[in-house]
Amino acid sequence: MQSEIWQYLDFLGVAVFAVTGGLVAARLRQDFIAFLFFCSLTGIGGGTLRDTLLDVPVFWVVDESYLYVCLIVSVIMWFYAHKVEAWGRPLRWLDAVGVASYSVMGAAKAISLGDNAAVAVLMGVASATFGGILRDIIAGQPSALLQREIYLAAAFAGAITYSVTLMASGQSNLAAALGFAMAMVLRGGAIAKDWHLPSYTPPKKKDMDELD
Amino acid sequence: MQSEIWQYLDFLGVAVFAVTGGLVAARLRQDFIAFLFFCSLTGIGGGTLRDTLLDVPVFWVVDESYLYVCLIVSVIMWFYAHKVEAWGRPLRWLDAVGVASYSVMGAAKAISLGDNAAVAVLMGVASATFGGILRDIIAGQPSALLQREIYLAAAFAGAITYSVTLMASGQSNLAAALGFAMAMVLRGGAIAKDWHLPSYTPPKKKDMDELD
Amino acid sequence: MQSEIWQYLDFLGVAVFAVTGGLVAARLRQDFIAFLFFCSLTGIGGGTLRDTLLDVPVFWVVDESYLYVCLIVSVIMWFYAHKVEAWGRPLRWLDAVGVASYSVMGAAKAISLGDNAAVAVLMGVASATFGGILRDIIAGQPSALLQREIYLAAAFAGAITYSVTLMASGQSNLAAALGFAMAMVLRGGAIAKDWHLPSYTPPKKKDMDELD
Repeated sequence: MQSEIWQYLDFLGVAVFAVTGGLVAARLRQDFIAFLFFCSLTGIGGGTLRDTLLDVPVFWVVDESYLYVCLIVSVIMWFYAHKVEAWGRPLRWLDAVGVASYSVMGAAKAISLGDNAAVAVLMGVASATFGGILRDIIAGQPSALLQREIYLAAAFAGAITYSVTLMASGQSNLAAALGFAMAMVLRGGAIAKDWHLPSYTPPKKKDMDELD
Repeated sequence: MQSEIWQYLDFLGVAVFAVTGGLVAARLRQDFIAFLFFCSLTGIGGGTLRDTLLDVPVFWVVDESYLYVCLIVSVIMWFYAHKVEAWGRPLRWLDAVGVASYSVMGAAKAISLGDNAAVAVLMGVASATFGGILRDIIAGQPSALLQREIYLAAAFAGAITYSVTLMASGQSNLAAALGFAMAMVLRGGAIAKDWHLPSYTPPKKKDMDELD
Repeated sequence: MQSEIWQYLDFLGVAVFAVTGGLVAARLRQDFIAFLFFCSLTGIGGGTLRDTLLDVPVFWVVDESYLYVCLIVSVIMWFYAHKVEAWGRPLRWLDAVGVASYSVMGAAKAISLGDNAAVAVLMGVASATFGGILRDIIAGQPSALLQREIYLAAAFAGAITYSVTLMASGQSNLAAALGFAMAMVLRGGAIAKDWHLPSYTPPKKKDMDELD
């Protein structure tokens, strides 16, 4: 029962990321095959990197259902991308669910293979962000990572919270719930209240002159 | 004998993609080492992704002849890129041969490893397109995928035709010939008769207003 | 003792590349998490590609110390990026040390796994350059590879010198020293004396017209 819920969250994550790929294909006025390409790339890109780095079989090679999820999303987006585009804010919340669940699942997969917390955190972040990175690079648009929103940070926080809680308590359900909640709170704060982290600011020119 | 013909097609595919990498290096007025880099990246990129995702040894690590093909193409392109550039149309037909043979070979490799049709199709497409994607990204030019030609679609069609025919008939030679032919017809139609698929078109503004 | 020196060079390579990632994050005025992302991506990207292609466990999954190196560099860069930026030339020499040691270590790892010289050279080049390629792509800046400096060529020369010397003499220390020196001389010449390789130049217009 527990594992079924995770299974659904996993499919939800792939589907949500695939939707964002379909939106990019629609904005670029592409054909249906390009929808299929962008939906698949964004939907399964992060998990593919995670599995490649962990040296385990790639999840969609093991279970092709994930590819059918991408196919179904492509068809839906081909007909309804303009409506989904009009949703705007709800979509950002769905995307937040994807980031939160992937950051936890990426870390959990690494730890279940015996890797330590530092590796687990990187796998969580890679899972949650790489699909979107690929989507933006191939579409030739500025990476979502560079937009100074709390995005990468939410994935980091989710993966760290999961890993630390699991090590401290040994309870994986508690760890997953807390990690998921932490990522949602941070990403949700960015969406709803425009939270952001301080940016790097170099010292003023006067200070820089002292270096010369 | 049969396998030898495929072997040659395989080398032809690497060589043709390498030529397109060399053309990009020439347009960017790069030095010889960059020619070597772009020829290799484009020539072996797609097959490298395929083998990494399938978790089998990378083909050019197993048989370094492919690297020598890239080296030879680099030398030829260094001296004759301007003549190859002037060929234009013949080159696009050669590239079509590369796409068609790679889409079939990618799918065939996945199926020979016991993977199902959905995975095989994705491997065919990845093999046929990833080298060109890398080339365009690193050269900083718009991806060939976004130019609304039938390119990705030809790779998809070749891989699907191969997979479906193989499953229906059990005859791999027939499947390979049909898959190759299907990809060539679609890509050839795009080259010779400017075929293209319909692009995504959002409803007119009036319809969109109804959403508000 | 010998192996310890290499170990330190290895950490130095990761740290130096991580510093260049931090500089990019600072120029883009990013937050701390993006510093962590760019430092890690650039620091471990090349070695990650190498290990993935060689189908061996990724080095930082095996030994997470490399991740702590990236974390420490991120913190230092967050506070002192403007000072490091002001160093300019010394940094380019440090980067040269990174390229030289990585090109040799990448080739050495491939040869130690039984691969031949052509594969080893490609692994050396991939190790030394891929982190920087990823950094430039995600930051949306023109690739360092395209700037017609002797960069890629230094990595090639280091890996080739190492491989050839090892095969001719059987002495790995000698081969490593010569490979490292060769890469440093070429890259150093580019930094100090603006050495560069001849660029591709198409024949003059008159010659081209003859093709018509």
